[in-house]
Amino acid sequence: MQKLLYGVAYYDEYMPYDRLEKDIGMMKDAGINVVRIAESTWSTHEPQNGVFDFTSVNRVLDAMHEAGIKVIVGTPTYAVPTWMVKEHPDVLAITPQGPGRYGARQIMDITNPTYLFYAERIIRKLIGHVKDHPAVIGYQTDNETKHYNTSGPNVQLAFVKYMREKFETLERVNAAFGLDYWSNRINSWEDFPSVVGTINGSLGAEFAKFQRKLVTDFLAWQVAIVNEYKRNDQFVTQNFDFEWRGYSYGIQPKVDHFEAAKAFDIAGVDIYHPSQDDLTGIEISFGGDVTRSMKGSNYLVIETEAQAFVNWVPYPGQLRLQAFSHLASGANMVAYWHWHSIHNSFETYWKGLLSHDFEPNPVYNEAKTIGRDFERLSPQLVNLQKKNKVAVLVSNESLTAIEWFKFNFASSKNYNDVVRMMYDELYKMNIGCDFVHPASENLEDYTLLVVPALYTASDSLLERLNEFVKNGGHIVYSFKSGFTDENVKVRTTRQPGMISEACGITYSMFVEPKNVSLKGNPFEVGAEDNYIETWMELITPTTAEVLAYYDHPHWGQYAAITQNHYGKGIATYIGCMTSPAIMKKVLEHAVKQADLWGADQNLEFPLITKSGINQSGKVVRYYFNYSDCPASFEYPHNDGVELLTEAAIKSEQAVEVDAWGVIIIEEY
Amino acid sequence: MQKLLYGVAYYDEYMPYDRLEKDIGMMKDAGINVVRIAESTWSTHEPQNGVFDFTSVNRVLDAMHEAGIKVIVGTPTYAVPTWMVKEHPDVLAITPQGPGRYGARQIMDITNPTYLFYAERIIRKLIGHVKDHPAVIGYQTDNETKHYNTSGPNVQLAFVKYMREKFETLERVNAAFGLDYWSNRINSWEDFPSVVGTINGSLGAEFAKFQRKLVTDFLAWQVAIVNEYKRNDQFVTQNFDFEWRGYSYGIQPKVDHFEAAKAFDIAGVDIYHPSQDDLTGIEISFGGDVTRSMKGSNYLVIETEAQAFVNWVPYPGQLRLQAFSHLASGANMVAYWHWHSIHNSFETYWKGLLSHDFEPNPVYNEAKTIGRDFERLSPQLVNLQKKNKVAVLVSNESLTAIEWFKFNFASSKNYNDVVRMMYDELYKMNIGCDFVHPASENLEDYTLLVVPALYTASDSLLERLNEFVKNGGHIVYSFKSGFTDENVKVRTTRQPGMISEACGITYSMFVEPKNVSLKGNPFEVGAEDNYIETWMELITPTTAEVLAYYDHPHWGQYAAITQNHYGKGIATYIGCMTSPAIMKKVLEHAVKQADLWGADQNLEFPLITKSGINQSGKVVRYYFNYSDCPASFEYPHNDGVELLTEAAIKSEQAVEVDAWGVIIIEEY
Amino acid sequence: MQKLLYGVAYYDEYMPYDRLEKDIGMMKDAGINVVRIAESTWSTHEPQNGVFDFTSVNRVLDAMHEAGIKVIVGTPTYAVPTWMVKEHPDVLAITPQGPGRYGARQIMDITNPTYLFYAERIIRKLIGHVKDHPAVIGYQTDNETKHYNTSGPNVQLAFVKYMREKFETLERVNAAFGLDYWSNRINSWEDFPSVVGTINGSLGAEFAKFQRKLVTDFLAWQVAIVNEYKRNDQFVTQNFDFEWRGYSYGIQPKVDHFEAAKAFDIAGVDIYHPSQDDLTGIEISFGGDVTRSMKGSNYLVIETEAQAFVNWVPYPGQLRLQAFSHLASGANMVAYWHWHSIHNSFETYWKGLLSHDFEPNPVYNEAKTIGRDFERLSPQLVNLQKKNKVAVLVSNESLTAIEWFKFNFASSKNYNDVVRMMYDELYKMNIGCDFVHPASENLEDYTLLVVPALYTASDSLLERLNEFVKNGGHIVYSFKSGFTDENVKVRTTRQPGMISEACGITYSMFVEPKNVSLKGNPFEVGAEDNYIETWMELITPTTAEVLAYYDHPHWGQYAAITQNHYGKGIATYIGCMTSPAIMKKVLEHAVKQADLWGADQNLEFPLITKSGINQSGKVVRYYFNYSDCPASFEYPHNDGVELLTEAAIKSEQAVEVDAWGVIIIEEY
Repeated sequence: MQKLLYGVAYYDEYMPYDRLEKDIGMMKDAGINVVRIAESTWSTHEPQNGVFDFTSVNRVLDAMHEAGIKVIVGTPTYAVPTWMVKEHPDVLAITPQGPGRYGARQIMDITNPTYLFYAERIIRKLIGHVKDHPAVIGYQTDNETKHYNTSGPNVQLAFVKYMREKFETLERVNAAFGLDYWSNRINSWEDFPSVVGTINGSLGAEFAKFQRKLVTDFLAWQVAIVNEYKRNDQFVTQNFDFEWRGYSYGIQPKVDHFEAAKAFDIAGVDIYHPSQDDLTGIEISFGGDVTRSMKGSNYLVIETEAQAFVNWVPYPGQLRLQAFSHLASGANMVAYWHWHSIHNSFETYWKGLLSHDFEPNPVYNEAKTIGRDFERLSPQLVNLQKKNKVAVLVSNESLTAIEWFKFNFASSKNYNDVVRMMYDELYKMNIGCDFVHPASENLEDYTLLVVPALYTASDSLLERLNEFVKNGGHIVYSFKSGFTDENVKVRTTRQPGMISEACGITYSMFVEPKNVSLKGNPFEVGAEDNYIETWMELITPTTAEVLAYYDHPHWGQYAAITQNHYGKGIATYIGCMTSPAIMKKVLEHAVKQADLWGADQNLEFPLITKSGINQSGKVVRYYFNYSDCPASFEYPHNDGVELLTEAAIKSEQAVEVDAWGVIIIEEY
Repeated sequence: MQKLLYGVAYYDEYMPYDRLEKDIGMMKDAGINVVRIAESTWSTHEPQNGVFDFTSVNRVLDAMHEAGIKVIVGTPTYAVPTWMVKEHPDVLAITPQGPGRYGARQIMDITNPTYLFYAERIIRKLIGHVKDHPAVIGYQTDNETKHYNTSGPNVQLAFVKYMREKFETLERVNAAFGLDYWSNRINSWEDFPSVVGTINGSLGAEFAKFQRKLVTDFLAWQVAIVNEYKRNDQFVTQNFDFEWRGYSYGIQPKVDHFEAAKAFDIAGVDIYHPSQDDLTGIEISFGGDVTRSMKGSNYLVIETEAQAFVNWVPYPGQLRLQAFSHLASGANMVAYWHWHSIHNSFETYWKGLLSHDFEPNPVYNEAKTIGRDFERLSPQLVNLQKKNKVAVLVSNESLTAIEWFKFNFASSKNYNDVVRMMYDELYKMNIGCDFVHPASENLEDYTLLVVPALYTASDSLLERLNEFVKNGGHIVYSFKSGFTDENVKVRTTRQPGMISEACGITYSMFVEPKNVSLKGNPFEVGAEDNYIETWMELITPTTAEVLAYYDHPHWGQYAAITQNHYGKGIATYIGCMTSPAIMKKVLEHAVKQADLWGADQNLEFPLITKSGINQSGKVVRYYFNYSDCPASFEYPHNDGVELLTEAAIKSEQAVEVDAWGVIIIEEY
Repeated sequence: MQKLLYGVAYYDEYMPYDRLEKDIGMMKDAGINVVRIAESTWSTHEPQNGVFDFTSVNRVLDAMHEAGIKVIVGTPTYAVPTWMVKEHPDVLAITPQGPGRYGARQIMDITNPTYLFYAERIIRKLIGHVKDHPAVIGYQTDNETKHYNTSGPNVQLAFVKYMREKFETLERVNAAFGLDYWSNRINSWEDFPSVVGTINGSLGAEFAKFQRKLVTDFLAWQVAIVNEYKRNDQFVTQNFDFEWRGYSYGIQPKVDHFEAAKAFDIAGVDIYHPSQDDLTGIEISFGGDVTRSMKGSNYLVIETEAQAFVNWVPYPGQLRLQAFSHLASGANMVAYWHWHSIHNSFETYWKGLLSHDFEPNPVYNEAKTIGRDFERLSPQLVNLQKKNKVAVLVSNESLTAIEWFKFNFASSKNYNDVVRMMYDELYKMNIGCDFVHPASENLEDYTLLVVPALYTASDSLLERLNEFVKNGGHIVYSFKSGFTDENVKVRTTRQPGMISEACGITYSMFVEPKNVSLKGNPFEVGAEDNYIETWMELITPTTAEVLAYYDHPHWGQYAAITQNHYGKGIATYIGCMTSPAIMKKVLEHAVKQADLWGADQNLEFPLITKSGINQSGKVVRYYFNYSDCPASFEYPHNDGVELLTEAAIKSEQAVEVDAWGVIIIEEY
């Protein structure tokens, strides 16, 4: 990437009247230098089967080019046209809820050959049509692709073949998944029942893994087609997204991000987050760290919020804070969903940079200042390189398995709650993180691994983690780690499986805590914070040192949190869901033991700092104030210049940060 | 109507043993002078296809006639017989939930020709059979008719034809509804997808409008058949009902009351409401005002509650209070659902005037006093004429559109909540209201229009409302008015669309309020009442005077409530959902500005007064005490006579009203 | 039964590796003397259609026999193999939710001939195969059998034939169920609509009764087949269960326990209950009393919890407390679900005696003490005979009817809540109870009948109850008793129907209480306990004495609770849902009047006592402390020996009971 991209999604097709010239004028005023087009409008570009009409694409490309605005063209395959569904209703995915119904986007069977035939044709037509246009800098394949729970007879058939290829014999399948239970045993491949109704969580999790593979395969297939056309100076990206809880919350359950990202030149993502009083920057940081880790390099924020919903309209300053927060995590592009607010349909109240009246408004006006700063500071801020010592190990397999095997009857908490409770505390203490996954080859590059609820893991992964500690690494495990093998079969050994050795503990019983705290409040948190919830393992140390016991009349002899010197490293094990305050203390303790506690850790949320090395090899340090009150701090690093104001900053100087403010220091 | 009707629904067919003579005796004791029969019992009257048996109708008609009790005969078409469904399962409506299932009433496709054939035949047979009977004073067609969300292939086909007739070209359809979005564009009429799965709220709202038209057409078709038979002294009515929230709450979403009522001689309605400590009279007044406005004249309360449910059994006095409240709104008939409590099926615990034991009980005994008073006072109380200066403008189109586009993610509030929050405060300050709708020709007859959430409106309606103000009218708009055109497309101009001009304001941003009040408590409500919720528009006045600003750290410069002199009138705009206390003050302010504040406004809920002109041209004034405590007030009008007690009442005299009591004064 | 059985469910088929020898060793250590096998593993025993493989059965039988452990063999019919569903998808039950889907157990149509053919074959093969094995002491047919709401066309056809046989003419059907209502009348048998969609609760309740009959017939059919094979020294039992609210709560709605139990030699049951701080013993007592009453003799606890769920893992001592509590209610067997925790599928977290690691753990270690005590004390504790003076009259018909006709709109309470609110107070005051049902022939053996919500009852039953009182019996009725006839038609007489006479009361109105208490707190409960809820009948005494009036401004003249001398007995009527504290006082009053208040009633929960006569004709008295605090009491009975400690106990001696402790005294 040569410069920072500041962009919007733009749909000439949705305009109530011809706005192109006016819109481009307003974009230029706001420093918008890239637009994303075409990924939602198949029915406009192919109004009838085999009839193509790229008028709107042509006019937008030409006009943008003339204005010096670059374009990312999307393949329009995630929303199928009406004629296709009328001709071939079977392109809609059959799900556990039954056959599909036309209306929404993302409703097709991504393995259906009819759909694939038409998809390939429109991709070839569209990309072939635009590839030589000078405005086009890259492509996005599809959008927020998932498998839409496609699970009809054809998908079931493919799953059975996948199972036969993977396990070879039914004897192995029956054993691996425990199918004798409740007479689920399969004794002939022809008898393999639809997985849709299964009550075997391990088999269900295997099917979910297979469905994620469908997404990986589908995206790789699209990329291969686009690659036939793309110029050397163009890239192919995808707009990945996250577990959605009304905003981008956690690891995406329906896609294996690390596998799916392999096909792409650069990772792209959308990040949506609470705002107004609830703006914390956590989702920006979390989503950024995950996306940067997909390919180990800078990434594109293909969509994020402008005005968005009634509860997200930013306070003055917040749009700037958000934009620079993305850059601080390694983004090279920040683009808004979307340029203008739409006058019809599902996202009418998902507002863009412009309101429905297309006139300047406070949010647009703030965007203009961002565009100016991006343009001016691009040489210092683009391509920020980050080198973290801490990584969070995440696992789609554990996520799915914990969907099947909940922590307890009452709790709605799932895998991502554990990921986030650990990640959030690292964020708040300004520890920069990467994300790794079971197949990562670079685990050993890190000093400290944080491992939330690694419920499902092969023997080899657990052995590798033991080895990591033995060789001097530090690990913090949460509860539920090591419990099942890669097929989600509970281990038949003492728990937590193989990592018992590095952790120096064992347990065979676990209960639901009610009014349980840690005995003697060993982490000296406030009384109201000394609690645990949801899950507790009754741990007996073998070689481990006990950091905390449960305070409970009958289970007070069991350990809650332990640490163990193993080889040259230390493994910490947290046997229960703690309060955030306790988690913070445990992680702080582990960070200090790993000798990673530095000057940045003297600041804490809402004062957030992130840093990296820019193209000139200089250290760039961002300081963000995620609060409604101005703040100040003593700047602890080398002298430098504050880039927004061009003021010189001395080491140990007191620095002020406005409410919802940003400071960017480039060290000399 | 020559006299007040006091009635019950009566089903000889449901009786566990022959009760006719005894029942009539008890009816006579209670002053019951009309019964409604036959509308639920098709399977009894046509036990097999083409076999008719009107035995129970005959014997009831004859016995009632002998006793001097009049009869309203219903067409029995809203509950189909078992044989029809067995012969022709396709008479059941296909809905978004799939094909219908026999069991409940109101499950058929009201456009299905098989159903229509049989319906027409039973109507002709039954009405032809009874039309000359001297007991019959009128007919009810069907009952609480709706479209039952019929949306199978035949309905979809009719909808496409309706769309083609209305919009002529798909180009217009695509533009009007913004179908390019998410590839929903339709490029050939054959491709028109079922609307059942649509995520386009504008198109969904158009389909809802079409479905309401099916109801209008169906009822007009029935009325035309009945009209072929009815005598000149007989009427045809319909039992309309309201949005149901466990009781009659608001405007009916499934029927366009004003359109559907055109076919009928007189409007009928059912009104059910909370009782016991929760009895306020609001639903009686609201339902009465709507129904009276349907045809601009007196109406029939065809059903209302006697004992009803366990939480509605009236306290002593409440049945009387309710009966006279209906009259005070302009009802000429009060009839109970139902005479006796039913021993089987769905409404076993929806109790009638009699309990399951058919014996006199406290509620029946109270009904006897009502019957006596109705009989005695009929000359003074029947055909009450009302002339209101205030009207509430309601819109089915806005109601449906706001179902699609909710105020925010968390709120369950909808259009009718806004209607009721405005109506309820008018009721509590004793302002008599009519209801008008977008097609009303009499808007200009009113001094003050109250306009809740007129979200969907054509340009011409908004221009007419501007004109209304310019010519000296007063309007109070709530938030969300003027936002979309008649096709539920958001206007591309500044908001609130065309009424910006009369209101003297503009806005382009809106947010969800959290802990927001009005700055400086300008309406001097209690501190706990100074709040807004759910929705706030960030208003900038152009020519308007600001009545209230938001109290918010970032949005405090925006106006919340404004008023604007425009031409000779004043337009008030309320940009947020206020507390009821604030709404009361804003409406009080508007009423005073419109010079409509009178002596009746010195009383307030729970003391309610309503009035009208009776057949002798005299003013009749009702006073109701909707509380468990006796009350008194100074009577401010001309001398008269209290009709129940025959006591003379002098102007300025102190008048006592019992707990749950009624006073009726006829001025001399 | 010759000795106490202490058992586990054991599945060699589920084992991750060969455990048989080791498991048997650990069982012997724990005193396990019986295992239950085979009831869930059809697909293992018949891997393909007609191919049988009883390897795992053989090896388990032989190994158990060698170890002296007995075996109960289950017919494996409640979970069908994959091949059967693939060959004949129609074996799956069609329910109101549509066709079945393979995956879970208990999904088949128990009337489907294909299923029955295969079920009969596997039963004959398996039972024929094992019948002569010396380890086999008995059989269990199927497991927790229900009708799974099977209601497809074949079931509907059978229901229509059942109706014709029962009612003979449609005239009677229409009259009995009030089908004229809403045009549901059926005028030809061919027109009989599917009951699935009915809104007629009486007809729906009849269908539920028919479905319960399907269960009775199915089980009797299985027993008849097994009986062809069983030896004289073998028994056939069934594992009945209860209304499930996350644990065994109340009377089973889907099975008529008393009818279904007739076919069996001995009643079996599973009982699951809250534990830890929520362990009360109530479900153990309730389930035991019901099961003992099924056949009027001792019974088997075929399944109960060991570690079970995270919220049930027992505190130290609780497993012992639970085991002896079962014996005290008359159980001759206590068996755990299950031996080991399963490593896959639905019940992975429903933990057994062993954890997933198969190693000894605290719960297993406690079981070892139970096994030793069972073995040692078997001669004194087995075959405990109980003779109670109090019985609770329960009715499946009333249960179903109250499902259709809820107490009120807001309440989730149902029939079993009433059963339990009465039963629980009897339990807490140490009153031993049996259960009787409408067809019981032994009602007259009791001194006091407690009758919760006998909503549905024939005239003859009500007359019999009146006669019972007249002859000197005592009855405590709750509200809602007597209201409908056996077809769930509301009685047309004054309420509570025929029992008005014995109760000396009448009412025709009922309401939902809001903030209602009993006037003057006549039972002298704490102020916070003086409340009623959910339902109140406005009762007028005829001959009854009023025990309590309602405290209500408008309904204070009505009685809430009454008692009436009728003949030589007393009938108490409770017209509302009281607080537990009030219920306790009313029942205490009735027990005293019936002269059943004895020394055991001086103890109360958490100190629970139960007693019976053992095989030597001696009185055995259990004392349980259901609390976390040690307790003591003065032993009021004859001298004896405490069996666990062999300490002598003198009458009037102070006896200590540990927290969660057990004392067993055999009188000399």
